[in-house]
Amino acid sequence: MFDHRWSASEKKIARRAYDAALERALEKVVADFKASAAAATTPAEVWDIGDALYKKRREIDRTFDYRYSQLPFVFALLIQDGLLEPAQLDGLSQEKIDDIQRLVAWHRKRSGD
Amino acid sequence: MFDHRWSASEKKIARRAYDAALERALEKVVADFKASAAAATTPAEVWDIGDALYKKRREIDRTFDYRYSQLPFVFALLIQDGLLEPAQLDGLSQEKIDDIQRLVAWHRKRSGD
Repeated sequence: MFDHRWSASEKKIARRAYDAALERALEKVVADFKASAAAATTPAEVWDIGDALYKKRREIDRTFDYRYSQLPFVFALLIQDGLLEPAQLDGLSQEKIDDIQRLVAWHRKRSGD
Repeated sequence: MFDHRWSASEKKIARRAYDAALERALEKVVADFKASAAAATTPAEVWDIGDALYKKRREIDRTFDYRYSQLPFVFALLIQDGLLEPAQLDGLSQEKIDDIQRLVAWHRKRSGD
């Protein structure tokens, strides 16, 4: 579907946006974890936090996939999740921007936002 | 190996000791978790806490096995782990106490304590 060529400058922009979103996602993991850990008082709540961490880790591993064929999907998802601002992709070709915007719109529609 | 009969009063003592040790174990899980969560600052530390929780949960599930044939092993392990005081087993038959003490001694020797 997305077999565009990525120029050297596009690769640089993509890598920077990807790394920034990953850092943001991981900062959120730490902050959310620390808030729920501080609020936990029972063993059941502690086990639940363990389960949530496991799911979150899998979700992050699944989301962050740095293959150029996957990047439009990845960036659309990150925009949708508030981990990436569209402006961080400035400098990508219009074709790629359009693809990503279409995916975001499609995803929003599907999630009923 | 341990197919002793358990009298009604022994069952009552065993249940009380077991429940108290489980409660103590779970309180320790919560306290240790909250201390390590409060100290964690990096994503790697957070994932490590998730892994440790998973292992701890399996360890507790494995340890706490309320079958009468398993109780001598369970009580020996709980004494060894500081979750049960031998005095909490007062009222069990001398034969059971001896079995448990032998297991504790064997376990200490094996762990090199």
